[in-house]
Amino acid sequence: MSNSALSSFFSPSSVAVVGASENAEKLGSVILQNILDAQFPGKIRGINPKYTGKTLMGVPFLSRLSDEKEPFDLVVIVVPASFTKAVVEDAIQNKTKNIILISAGFGEVGNIELEHEIQILCEQNGITLLGPNCLGAIFPFAKLNASFADGFPEEGNICFVSQSGAFCTAVLDWAMEKGIGFSHFISLGNKAGISEIEILEHLADDPKVQIFAFYLESLRNGNRFIKLIEKISNTKPVVILQPGRSIKALEASASHTGSLAPNARVLEAAYKKAGAIQVLSMREMFGVLKVLSFAKGKNFGRRLGIITNAGGVGVEASDLTEENHLELVDLSSELMDTLRKSLPAEANTKNPIDIIGDAKTDRYNTALEILAKSNEVDQILVLLTPQRTTEIEKTANCIADWFEKIPQNIIASFVGGEKVWKGIRILRSRKTPAFRFSVEAIRTMSLLANRTVQMEKTPALRTFFPSSASVLQNLLDEANVKNEKSLSAEATEAFLKAYELDFPLSGGFTDKEEAKKFASSFFPDRKVVVKLSAPSALHKTEMKGVFLDVSREDLFDEAWESLSHSISKFKIPDAKILIQEQIPKGTEVIVGIHSDSTFGKVLLFGMGGIYTEILQDTTIEVLPDADIPSMIGRTKVGKVLMGVRGEAPKAIADLQKTMEHIAYMAEDFPDIFAIDMNPIFVTEQRAICVDVKILLASA
Amino acid sequence: MSNSALSSFFSPSSVAVVGASENAEKLGSVILQNILDAQFPGKIRGINPKYTGKTLMGVPFLSRLSDEKEPFDLVVIVVPASFTKAVVEDAIQNKTKNIILISAGFGEVGNIELEHEIQILCEQNGITLLGPNCLGAIFPFAKLNASFADGFPEEGNICFVSQSGAFCTAVLDWAMEKGIGFSHFISLGNKAGISEIEILEHLADDPKVQIFAFYLESLRNGNRFIKLIEKISNTKPVVILQPGRSIKALEASASHTGSLAPNARVLEAAYKKAGAIQVLSMREMFGVLKVLSFAKGKNFGRRLGIITNAGGVGVEASDLTEENHLELVDLSSELMDTLRKSLPAEANTKNPIDIIGDAKTDRYNTALEILAKSNEVDQILVLLTPQRTTEIEKTANCIADWFEKIPQNIIASFVGGEKVWKGIRILRSRKTPAFRFSVEAIRTMSLLANRTVQMEKTPALRTFFPSSASVLQNLLDEANVKNEKSLSAEATEAFLKAYELDFPLSGGFTDKEEAKKFASSFFPDRKVVVKLSAPSALHKTEMKGVFLDVSREDLFDEAWESLSHSISKFKIPDAKILIQEQIPKGTEVIVGIHSDSTFGKVLLFGMGGIYTEILQDTTIEVLPDADIPSMIGRTKVGKVLMGVRGEAPKAIADLQKTMEHIAYMAEDFPDIFAIDMNPIFVTEQRAICVDVKILLASA
Repeated sequence: MSNSALSSFFSPSSVAVVGASENAEKLGSVILQNILDAQFPGKIRGINPKYTGKTLMGVPFLSRLSDEKEPFDLVVIVVPASFTKAVVEDAIQNKTKNIILISAGFGEVGNIELEHEIQILCEQNGITLLGPNCLGAIFPFAKLNASFADGFPEEGNICFVSQSGAFCTAVLDWAMEKGIGFSHFISLGNKAGISEIEILEHLADDPKVQIFAFYLESLRNGNRFIKLIEKISNTKPVVILQPGRSIKALEASASHTGSLAPNARVLEAAYKKAGAIQVLSMREMFGVLKVLSFAKGKNFGRRLGIITNAGGVGVEASDLTEENHLELVDLSSELMDTLRKSLPAEANTKNPIDIIGDAKTDRYNTALEILAKSNEVDQILVLLTPQRTTEIEKTANCIADWFEKIPQNIIASFVGGEKVWKGIRILRSRKTPAFRFSVEAIRTMSLLANRTVQMEKTPALRTFFPSSASVLQNLLDEANVKNEKSLSAEATEAFLKAYELDFPLSGGFTDKEEAKKFASSFFPDRKVVVKLSAPSALHKTEMKGVFLDVSREDLFDEAWESLSHSISKFKIPDAKILIQEQIPKGTEVIVGIHSDSTFGKVLLFGMGGIYTEILQDTTIEVLPDADIPSMIGRTKVGKVLMGVRGEAPKAIADLQKTMEHIAYMAEDFPDIFAIDMNPIFVTEQRAICVDVKILLASA
Repeated sequence: MSNSALSSFFSPSSVAVVGASENAEKLGSVILQNILDAQFPGKIRGINPKYTGKTLMGVPFLSRLSDEKEPFDLVVIVVPASFTKAVVEDAIQNKTKNIILISAGFGEVGNIELEHEIQILCEQNGITLLGPNCLGAIFPFAKLNASFADGFPEEGNICFVSQSGAFCTAVLDWAMEKGIGFSHFISLGNKAGISEIEILEHLADDPKVQIFAFYLESLRNGNRFIKLIEKISNTKPVVILQPGRSIKALEASASHTGSLAPNARVLEAAYKKAGAIQVLSMREMFGVLKVLSFAKGKNFGRRLGIITNAGGVGVEASDLTEENHLELVDLSSELMDTLRKSLPAEANTKNPIDIIGDAKTDRYNTALEILAKSNEVDQILVLLTPQRTTEIEKTANCIADWFEKIPQNIIASFVGGEKVWKGIRILRSRKTPAFRFSVEAIRTMSLLANRTVQMEKTPALRTFFPSSASVLQNLLDEANVKNEKSLSAEATEAFLKAYELDFPLSGGFTDKEEAKKFASSFFPDRKVVVKLSAPSALHKTEMKGVFLDVSREDLFDEAWESLSHSISKFKIPDAKILIQEQIPKGTEVIVGIHSDSTFGKVLLFGMGGIYTEILQDTTIEVLPDADIPSMIGRTKVGKVLMGVRGEAPKAIADLQKTMEHIAYMAEDFPDIFAIDMNPIFVTEQRAICVDVKILLASA
């Protein structure tokens, strides 16, 4: 889809509505009326054979689109599903550039074939398609309301895109109350044509758009979407609400849109990595949009300063700050001195700064000025309770003044009812963020501070490559041919070797010299276990068949002689003597690779052993470019590895290298579906892959 | 403090204000005006020597309280702190029954002595004291506003008590906007006299009070408070906001009220046990109070039914339901059939029930009726988005109708702006709970469902008592005399034996027959370790000084001979041969006792070993009557004990007995300050206390 085609979509010079009629209740008529009400400046036509040549609502009506010689930039179709194909064919004759298909009755009710046919028709004829089963679209700057939504929002800097029509109506109603404006307001419907991808692609550089907000129930192409977000999220925040984290929500969503959502944890990891702001409820989305639309370009760092006229409310805010992972800054003693000199003696100059119940506006002003001029906080929360002498409206104006002139973000929380509303109304009219409850302000500040800033990434130069890629591919091919679900022990070992992973070596011997040579390769730093390997020798220990802690040649000789003696004495058939590296017990970790249906290969790290599932101490990142040190650092087992209660720290550098190479292995071979290494023993010297499974994509 | 005295406090027939004057700005004048505005029907007097014999605002003024022959029921004092003592002495002469001391300048600024003097004066003369440093009190049913708060709330069923004056003003403002009424509205201030305790004691049986709400920063007597809550929380919900969960909040609170809060986890455990509803923010408190004041006596169970006219909003609610630990009920197939017959074909009859975007009121009514008549849900969430044909006001009335007549709780969430406000206003005027966002509705439902119902408890009959209580007390006394911080190994062993706890036995021997008798007591089921015990024999292993896995007499003989040989060969002085039970390795758990400054002895259970602090898998309950099976069940290590991946389950019954007996030990001896058992090895057969420390209260 070319950008120029989309330009005519977002800013058409002619619009036709197919399905408008005299009946004002019908959706087609509602949409035509909406187009007229918004004072669309271009050509407008109604299409309905019943009214050919007539004029309804001042709009000339044609029988068919193709009756018009000039191609329409945009055609809005609101006819029953069974008629839509004919209308699209008519549009093709007209050389229509863009279609919004409002009509329902397609994929969402199982009628996938018709949806597909229309999709193909549009694609083959270079027509941009929005819908079907959508509310339409509103482009305030183009003065176009091609939707059946009630009301026309202000011009603003938010591009809002929703997969749910009902969510659109709620957001519109909310935004009109709060004075929030939009650059674009788009209901995606079934996404047969345009999806979140094309919108981001086309509007990323549009200066009218400063914030993207998405309500999504499924992703067209998760990887592409994430890449696009990654590119722009530093300059234009991308806010996403994507329900479906719970089992029940997945079920409800499936019956609602038939979509299959990616694993919620993978989704979270992917959005975080791309620098998106993922919100978990509509309230959070509304909060974040309100602040962003007012506070574009402000500092949203983690260091919070709080000013309050009520101690108790400040204490509550302290709790909430910690629980939302913001930093309630310890102010410098210089700053506290400055505050002390400017505030009454009873004031508390520690953060949260308590300017005491009788504070009037001047005291708020003083505290704001001192905080604003310091470089000690990134965001300021101003708490106000309606006490007897509190100047609510004047204080609201004072806060708005500061908000306009400083780089720090400010949010006001006026706690109460009718009295504080007066202040909140002033703040709203002056486009300064305000909430009734501090918990909402703090949660919003936290969501904004959590946004991962996208660094100019020069991806770490890969210096390691496996020695024998084609041999490894052959092993995978062989396993695939045999339709095996996982690699054999031998093939697995070949992969471990090729990726220079540390694992316990072993070999079975009948010749003493060969065996001794192998065993000696471990001495003196490592030990081996020497034991019998024979199908018929089940009870090895009872036959004195296992020698542990063999770390010298004389001990090896002793073990060999004893085992050889047993073999001849008991006449064990097919007997070998097995020499295995004896693994020092270390901290057990798990490293895994999974394939997500949307985002591809995902790296998992966490506490290992048989209790992995119960302990739930794991973290994931989407490949490539996982931040492995951070992954280790944010788990509990990562803290264990650093050494607890006098234990020596474990070989974290080796573990990092191990994880890196496992990630390369997964990236290098698409045939690998999953890797499960549990446990890896991390000792003081090594990270040893003790139990390894490599699963195949074909399985 | 007798109840009759408090009766005259809550419903006085005469009131005097000390400190009112011609200056309307002064707090004393504000309070006198408030009393007049609320139309207090009893006798009112002003006290101020400047206006003796005069009448201000229609109120006769006296020079001193004692100039009035009749004792005042209530005297409100608003004079500078330095004059308060004289006024209280004057009140004593008048035989005043109750005092509200508004004045600040006492304990909160370090002036503890004066506060204490006044406290003693009041106590000795049977005067009930509220304050100092408070906003006053409002008793709507008595038509008394003895506070300097702005506005007089409606009569209602909430008794609201706050340790923060500013919080009072915010709540009052909010309540007046939302139409929420109060039975009592009390600002506690420094709590020199009345505290949360006396209020609960006196008002527990007052039929005007149906809900108690507390904002507290410290507790006068935590144990007593909890006991009182336990008694009434089944019939009258007790809602508590007590900030101070975070380190920073504790610091802020300390500078605010000088109070020392109990450990936040202990507090949470205590409130939960007592059946209180602990809220974490003002928003949560407001939400819970709104619903409770409208929905008194409703069913607040965990089974949630959702009705929505928007699929996406339903999916979001599904996520939030799971995250708030409510049960999104799987409706029976019969119920879904009934719904299917009554709703359009496109409707989704699975919970959340999607009645589709074009739903008018009749469809909401149908779904509500079917859910209400079923016995399948406890609470119903009705979601509405303002779609084109949505009948917002009519639907609000429909919901209010159902709310009035069914036992299930209903909360409406109307998502949007101005349009849905119309519906929310109707719901508010009809006293039906409504929120703008489903997340608030769901969170509130969850808080209400979480309330622990207080069973008629017949405390479990204690069948175990230690054999030698006086001997044990002697051991503690001896340790106390020596000023020891913890019990010696011998004394600890005596406690373990007396409380029948399982621990590894050991003994040092020089006589072989005695040693063999001791060792044999373990055979054949258990093993012992036989080793040298001698200060000079440091490197035991090199001297072949340790024999593991000794489980038979012949193995013992072998070990004894070898060690005896070493002793004589190396001429080791003071050598003994040590026999220790060899402990089978089990799952490591921690069991601990801590003494909380407020709630006394607390039992802790969780994952043990050296990683306890990192893994943070512990749970606590306040003693006595801890629910030990539930404690084990709610930890991760509890799931490990049940047997993971084919492991046999561990001896959970023995662990329970162990925990019970440790709790008894702590309860029986106040001198025990803390017990730390980490690890306890829980094997398939036993719970063995491997490492035990008993700390003393004197330490």
